[in-house]
Amino acid sequence: MIDLTQIHDSIAATPSKIVLLVADGLGGLAHPETRRSELETARIPNLDALARRSACGLTTPVEVGVAPGSGPGHLALFGYDPLKYLIGRGALEALGIDVELLPGDVAARGNFCAVDDDGLLTDRRAGRIPTELSAPICERLNRIEIPGVRLDVFPVQDYRFVLRLRGTGLSELLEETDPQREGMAPRLVRALSPEAERTAAIVQQFVDEAGRLLAEDEPANMVLLRGWAQLPNLPDFGQVYHLNPAAIAAYPMYRGLASVANMQVIPTGKTFGDEVNTLRDNWHGHDFFFIHYKPADAAGEDGDFDGKVQTLEELDAHIPSILALQPDVLMVAGDHATPAIMAAHSWHPVPFLLHSRYTIGEGVDGFSERACGQGALGRIPAQTIMLLALSHAGKLGKYGP
Amino acid sequence: MIDLTQIHDSIAATPSKIVLLVADGLGGLAHPETRRSELETARIPNLDALARRSACGLTTPVEVGVAPGSGPGHLALFGYDPLKYLIGRGALEALGIDVELLPGDVAARGNFCAVDDDGLLTDRRAGRIPTELSAPICERLNRIEIPGVRLDVFPVQDYRFVLRLRGTGLSELLEETDPQREGMAPRLVRALSPEAERTAAIVQQFVDEAGRLLAEDEPANMVLLRGWAQLPNLPDFGQVYHLNPAAIAAYPMYRGLASVANMQVIPTGKTFGDEVNTLRDNWHGHDFFFIHYKPADAAGEDGDFDGKVQTLEELDAHIPSILALQPDVLMVAGDHATPAIMAAHSWHPVPFLLHSRYTIGEGVDGFSERACGQGALGRIPAQTIMLLALSHAGKLGKYGP
Repeated sequence: MIDLTQIHDSIAATPSKIVLLVADGLGGLAHPETRRSELETARIPNLDALARRSACGLTTPVEVGVAPGSGPGHLALFGYDPLKYLIGRGALEALGIDVELLPGDVAARGNFCAVDDDGLLTDRRAGRIPTELSAPICERLNRIEIPGVRLDVFPVQDYRFVLRLRGTGLSELLEETDPQREGMAPRLVRALSPEAERTAAIVQQFVDEAGRLLAEDEPANMVLLRGWAQLPNLPDFGQVYHLNPAAIAAYPMYRGLASVANMQVIPTGKTFGDEVNTLRDNWHGHDFFFIHYKPADAAGEDGDFDGKVQTLEELDAHIPSILALQPDVLMVAGDHATPAIMAAHSWHPVPFLLHSRYTIGEGVDGFSERACGQGALGRIPAQTIMLLALSHAGKLGKYGP
Repeated sequence: MIDLTQIHDSIAATPSKIVLLVADGLGGLAHPETRRSELETARIPNLDALARRSACGLTTPVEVGVAPGSGPGHLALFGYDPLKYLIGRGALEALGIDVELLPGDVAARGNFCAVDDDGLLTDRRAGRIPTELSAPICERLNRIEIPGVRLDVFPVQDYRFVLRLRGTGLSELLEETDPQREGMAPRLVRALSPEAERTAAIVQQFVDEAGRLLAEDEPANMVLLRGWAQLPNLPDFGQVYHLNPAAIAAYPMYRGLASVANMQVIPTGKTFGDEVNTLRDNWHGHDFFFIHYKPADAAGEDGDFDGKVQTLEELDAHIPSILALQPDVLMVAGDHATPAIMAAHSWHPVPFLLHSRYTIGEGVDGFSERACGQGALGRIPAQTIMLLALSHAGKLGKYGP
């Protein structure tokens, strides 16, 4: 988080309302034939018009040249330094299936796997067994009890599961048990630091017990564990910014990321239309709203240029409904670019607009990578947009006399 | 200050001369009707022409989204990290009335106030008594003597004064005595840290004595003290940059800020014309000049769009006189934006130009927020302009072999 220790006293709660609309994977790249990006190809009259009366720019999620995952991408938009606070793989996996994580909990990604009579791996993914088969196995593993800790196993998909440990004095500083190739035995659970010895012993007990419970099963007769992670100790978003923040997201992982920042997660439906309705219904209860739009990223990851264009047009159609609520500040941002021609997250700076009563005549011609690159905001770290929002909303006074 | 430890040895004194013209509150925002900013509305042919043969850009005073006070705004332009070095309110108030502050001195803002027979506040501002009445009271308080410290009381305006403590081992870590509402007694002077205990005791003695001296007065029969501040321990501007710096400012606060950086303050008159004459008269005595233009900020703070336009036009008329001195480097900068439509300091990046023999053909069309946003310098931290100036003046050699 931008070091606010010096300016914290300049932030005051006011009735003004801020909306942060995150279009996941917003930024793109030009199509090789048309030489126009997804945003430049899409018919987005509402976003274009909004850009003309907004402050526009490009946000750098982590650092020039660095493509971020969803965790760092969102933490940066919330104002946290993504290089300082990392949500580990096990924790993100847990958040992605709506598993509650409390400070101190340890989460790991698990694989069901197959071992032979000598305990050597024959299939690291247990024949990719479907969820229908793995879910009942998770239930059986949930019967394992180890004194001093609560263990829970949650099915993810196919051969994958999440293991969550809850108790006092646990540590994430454990080695992964997956040796990464077959013909070897799963590794023992080793502590990477003395304070993790007890956690390592507990997990080893769990692994041994799982091996006994599954001994007669086929093909999933053992487990591999990796991506050990505890939640980073994030400053409380609402406390730092003097806001009463709400998060509205159809996808669990983004609800999870918001909950890690201690935003209030409001239940919503499965579509962005549901999310906008939830926004409207809860408009009077909060002064900050994070609302998440997933489909742009999904189409980008699929390498589906036309599909991503369509998701952007669908997003555009919802803009009037959000503007009708008359937010004092509306930001349209992306956590990272997901250019369809790359079919992956990328490192490119991401189009950004901020609209408030003070954004008169600094607009650009439309909402796209190229247009925002000419905007008044220039290229700014994603971490700074919350300061801009607070200032535009009249919540951040001047620093120093 | 940009960490110069690595490049300090690359700076050399040369005969070349640098002028830093700070137009206070330079940046603005578009008028809602014309959609043109103050700079875009003003007829400023000299600044426009200069911009065309300068390197232009936008400076960020403190951080994206953060509006600075005058202190941080100027310290940043001088190259100091404004988040590291903060000039507290009491110290700035003292500098604003030309009160000398030495390292170690403690300054506070004082209010004359009224208390009833029980010592409870009936008016925190003592009926806003005029300076004619408060100045003689300050003189009476100056008779208070406390062993081991020198106390001086200076009238500011109306019911406000500055208290300055001079002596060894003093501390600014004191609580404010103003309870912020009437019906309560002024707070006792409490130390926020053990090293401030002695200072707290001294100030409490002063407050008690003031109460006795003023007991029969009306309405000002007590004092409130707040904004305790000592000067930050700034590196010496001239030493760091190998310069012999001079400051020319009609307004005391800006002379004060320059003196904190240990620039030599040259006495001048009340107008910018006087300042330019002072610059000319002292041209051969220094190799760096900070010259301050106040009216743009004053009009902006008043919310007077047309008035600010006029001040910019008045500034423009003086540019040829400055150029006639043939400075090797002329910078025109602002400590922050003061958009008339906000009637306050703002967080927006500030137009900046630097002219030297090396700024050929990187010019933009004119001198304004939008034009400078397209300039060769891009958006730069205000803290970096001194490095640019030194390089353009041939005083900063290359870093590393």
